[in-house]
Amino acid sequence: MPASYAYLGPQGTFTEVALRTLPETATRELVPMVSVPAALDAVRTGEAEAAFVPIENSVEGGITTTLDELVAGEPLMIYREVLLSITFALLVRPGTKLTDIKTVTAHPAAQPQVRNWMKAHLDPDVTWESAASNADGARLVQEGRYDAAFAGEFAAERYGLVPLVTEIHDAENAQTRFVLVGKPARPAAPTGADKTSVVIWQRDDHPGALLELLQEFAVRGVNLMLLQSRPTGEGIGNYCFAIDAEGHISDRRVGEALMGLKRVCPEVRFLGSYPRAGVTVADVRAPRAGTTDGDFMAASDWLARCQDGRF
Amino acid sequence: MPASYAYLGPQGTFTEVALRTLPETATRELVPMVSVPAALDAVRTGEAEAAFVPIENSVEGGITTTLDELVAGEPLMIYREVLLSITFALLVRPGTKLTDIKTVTAHPAAQPQVRNWMKAHLDPDVTWESAASNADGARLVQEGRYDAAFAGEFAAERYGLVPLVTEIHDAENAQTRFVLVGKPARPAAPTGADKTSVVIWQRDDHPGALLELLQEFAVRGVNLMLLQSRPTGEGIGNYCFAIDAEGHISDRRVGEALMGLKRVCPEVRFLGSYPRAGVTVADVRAPRAGTTDGDFMAASDWLARCQDGRF
Amino acid sequence: MPASYAYLGPQGTFTEVALRTLPETATRELVPMVSVPAALDAVRTGEAEAAFVPIENSVEGGITTTLDELVAGEPLMIYREVLLSITFALLVRPGTKLTDIKTVTAHPAAQPQVRNWMKAHLDPDVTWESAASNADGARLVQEGRYDAAFAGEFAAERYGLVPLVTEIHDAENAQTRFVLVGKPARPAAPTGADKTSVVIWQRDDHPGALLELLQEFAVRGVNLMLLQSRPTGEGIGNYCFAIDAEGHISDRRVGEALMGLKRVCPEVRFLGSYPRAGVTVADVRAPRAGTTDGDFMAASDWLARCQDGRF
Amino acid sequence: MPASYAYLGPQGTFTEVALRTLPETATRELVPMVSVPAALDAVRTGEAEAAFVPIENSVEGGITTTLDELVAGEPLMIYREVLLSITFALLVRPGTKLTDIKTVTAHPAAQPQVRNWMKAHLDPDVTWESAASNADGARLVQEGRYDAAFAGEFAAERYGLVPLVTEIHDAENAQTRFVLVGKPARPAAPTGADKTSVVIWQRDDHPGALLELLQEFAVRGVNLMLLQSRPTGEGIGNYCFAIDAEGHISDRRVGEALMGLKRVCPEVRFLGSYPRAGVTVADVRAPRAGTTDGDFMAASDWLARCQDGRF
Repeated sequence: MPASYAYLGPQGTFTEVALRTLPETATRELVPMVSVPAALDAVRTGEAEAAFVPIENSVEGGITTTLDELVAGEPLMIYREVLLSITFALLVRPGTKLTDIKTVTAHPAAQPQVRNWMKAHLDPDVTWESAASNADGARLVQEGRYDAAFAGEFAAERYGLVPLVTEIHDAENAQTRFVLVGKPARPAAPTGADKTSVVIWQRDDHPGALLELLQEFAVRGVNLMLLQSRPTGEGIGNYCFAIDAEGHISDRRVGEALMGLKRVCPEVRFLGSYPRAGVTVADVRAPRAGTTDGDFMAASDWLARCQDGRF
Repeated sequence: MPASYAYLGPQGTFTEVALRTLPETATRELVPMVSVPAALDAVRTGEAEAAFVPIENSVEGGITTTLDELVAGEPLMIYREVLLSITFALLVRPGTKLTDIKTVTAHPAAQPQVRNWMKAHLDPDVTWESAASNADGARLVQEGRYDAAFAGEFAAERYGLVPLVTEIHDAENAQTRFVLVGKPARPAAPTGADKTSVVIWQRDDHPGALLELLQEFAVRGVNLMLLQSRPTGEGIGNYCFAIDAEGHISDRRVGEALMGLKRVCPEVRFLGSYPRAGVTVADVRAPRAGTTDGDFMAASDWLARCQDGRF
Repeated sequence: MPASYAYLGPQGTFTEVALRTLPETATRELVPMVSVPAALDAVRTGEAEAAFVPIENSVEGGITTTLDELVAGEPLMIYREVLLSITFALLVRPGTKLTDIKTVTAHPAAQPQVRNWMKAHLDPDVTWESAASNADGARLVQEGRYDAAFAGEFAAERYGLVPLVTEIHDAENAQTRFVLVGKPARPAAPTGADKTSVVIWQRDDHPGALLELLQEFAVRGVNLMLLQSRPTGEGIGNYCFAIDAEGHISDRRVGEALMGLKRVCPEVRFLGSYPRAGVTVADVRAPRAGTTDGDFMAASDWLARCQDGRF
Repeated sequence: MPASYAYLGPQGTFTEVALRTLPETATRELVPMVSVPAALDAVRTGEAEAAFVPIENSVEGGITTTLDELVAGEPLMIYREVLLSITFALLVRPGTKLTDIKTVTAHPAAQPQVRNWMKAHLDPDVTWESAASNADGARLVQEGRYDAAFAGEFAAERYGLVPLVTEIHDAENAQTRFVLVGKPARPAAPTGADKTSVVIWQRDDHPGALLELLQEFAVRGVNLMLLQSRPTGEGIGNYCFAIDAEGHISDRRVGEALMGLKRVCPEVRFLGSYPRAGVTVADVRAPRAGTTDGDFMAASDWLARCQDGRF
């Protein structure tokens, strides 16, 4: 029985397209799930080896459902990320013309990405109805319930539709970031272009508290790529922070920063170190002077000599 | 013709209840709108004097639709905030018993707040269907489409339902924060228990960049209450930050911090200074030593004397 | 009666040479004093218009007598600084050869600057005797009490001696910095290459206390050029800090940093803003982005507009 | 042949009194030297096991000769410190009355500590002559060259003088701190009330450079007790910093701070970890939350588990 990967379904969405860019999916059963919590629970219960879910997009920011599921409950770890450029196609039944369209549908998340295009190209009286997913919207067009659906161009064939317009996206560079999540295990070896995800809780809300936590990174020259606050569930104004930092937990500067956070935060949750998508080692900025592993080792040797009085 | 307040409708939701706690609503026409953007656009176009919308809750965190609308587009300002404790009632048609319930509905935002209660008290086979709003869910129960709806207890009467169970809330202290938003004008006078909202953009993503911005607050002893990243729309990983800080723009320490941000950020958007809900002057922590308006004025006098050589 | 400048005497020392580089000395009576305190007291009592004293040198660091006199007592202000390269000549009576020299003299401060030269060029049995000043040492050679004196080459003629060796200096770039000190008055107008001197006292010795004070400069992009701790006289371990910062008190970034210090320090003493010696405007690093006077004014305008609700 | 301790002589000075408070001096030969460099050179050449020299006093601040000798040359280490309260006695030949005194002498360092007393109690025409040391001043009184000497009361007997007045000190709490210096070896075990001395060089003079170095201490909760700038000898304005920090090099927070400095400074010189004089463990402030050795070890364990994926 092959290992399976759960993913946010249904079939024929951007999530599935992103997932299929991972080579190992060739040997995995891919199981669509109805929600992000359902996909992650499949990992927690052992039904799936891993789950593939969206975590951030350039229009909506952090996907809060995914973040909240990772922040709470039994610990999970991120092993891989995939970046996918998001452009929509307007899918219609064969023969439909632009001027025939009176009703359109798609997942609500698509709306902010096509709103301007709709204003410019569709009849102002066209009505929008939300669908449970973009694929589901395509299915409803196939069934004749709506005239058109915004979805990935790849969804056309599955539902017997044709792409009337492609490459629709209000914002340039619209991208979604997906992550492959599994049970905690040893992180992948560093590649030189890695990212570390962590969630930190503040000790209390004294002025400058968050600043002190960020200094744990800054003083070791670790750059932050994402800082997303999420409510702790203990009343309004109580937040934890999901943070993505450059580098791998096995980099000495990252490890020391994480230990610093562990010492001053009531809770720190390690979410994984994994290769950055869309970035090669050549793109990665050199570490700040004095923060390479070599610098850390030389300093450690020096300290040992000082403690021994040999210098 | 009375001035009108637009709000996130429909009628009979928590938003309306929160809005009605403001005394001036007695003399305003209250107009429900279908969405947050619609409510805010009513202000921008001059149709409404102000709009009342949710901005943060203790389960979901910042309400991203509201934040994104305030971050972009024509500037608006926050004049008031209201905190409302959120507890749900299970509304049913008269005569329905707990064991009769096979289908429930509510707005998707209600789900994380009643999930545990459902597991503990309802048949595991009960199916959940999302409604456009909690009030709409109640209406659908009235129409017989579902057996029960989670909504505010106050919605029962309007839809001819009865509250079978009340005070349902998975998390203690579940609250939602709403804001009254209008066109830019002079902020309300300081009360001594105020809050200032601002959005800042980073110059670039060099290590420690956010840290430097937070230091503009910290060095002047200004405490932060909320830091929420929002995508700038310029590609994944590009964020601005919505910040709530303690104090009023007319407090010298707050004003100097804002000017500091204005000098180092490519863009700063002032969103208003307004009284903190649920907090009296007596609850407010004293400013850090050296940061009262008196301290600022004494320092300014001293500088003038130094510049004149009189000391 | 011409105004007079007191200076650390006697005549014929480096101090006098440095003083004479100031053009206005042509129209002042120059009065040598026996000590730095005596020179500064002459200003405080009104006997002298100004005093000219050494404040820092590249071998000894801050001249503590001068710093302590400026830190305590009636306030004085620095109006000018002069940098002088220090090289010694070995002065002897005409006819003396290097091998004739059995005894040498000079002010004790000269010793660390000629020690290596002596080891390399003089008989190891030569004895060193301290003199009250380098000029006094030259006088004692003239009187036949010692064989040679280390002093400025310019002192030879006055005492009928000849420079046997010149350009003696153990350290490259040996320089002394002198300051012209007067009663408090309006500082000279900014030149674009200025320096501001200030003394600050710490509130208490909690960890990071000095760091917080330095952040008042850093957050406004003000560079420090000198930080010299001096005991406060209130027991061992109690220090104040004499600081030289880049820029002029009339620069907005410097003024705001000084006000910040004034608010958080129990005491701040302004010691003056004056042109940097040996530096032209072209040599001065551009202010950090966002810290020019124009940036400050733009931010101030913006704040006023926010406070008025006009934006 | 017993091991010997060199000290800043001559006999009968405060330095000797301070040295004799160390119990092990009972079994050492104590050798007075003419200068601090001579005393330290005796250690470097192996002639003496250790040297005992003043390093800081509450009137003069850091003793620059001592600091400069420790900063440069072959490395030495501090093993012990002694704090001595400094009060002077006015020593005279038997029979001398206060009104008989026309000339007084002492080491120049004594002058700022007795100046006010002299003004209040001696004839204003009394002349002051400097002596090479306080003990030497006493000897010159014995020889009849001056009428009185300021020195430690303990010096009276040795020179056949009597203390006419005792407990003379202009400043309250006048103290001098002395250190016992030896060749590098393993530091003494931590006592719980320790101090670590170190010299750091800055990488360059960019704004905030010193601030960054101090943050290496602050972020690990290490309190600073002394920060003394000393010229590097590479031209005016180039300084290194002698720093005393709370804690022992074997404390994890101190060790990590030192390694942080080692990584970002071009040079760091460890000067030793040793018990603080005049302070017991009960006087020592508790480490900041999250900075005990236990906290460091727990964080280190946690990191190892994260790296292994076991959590």
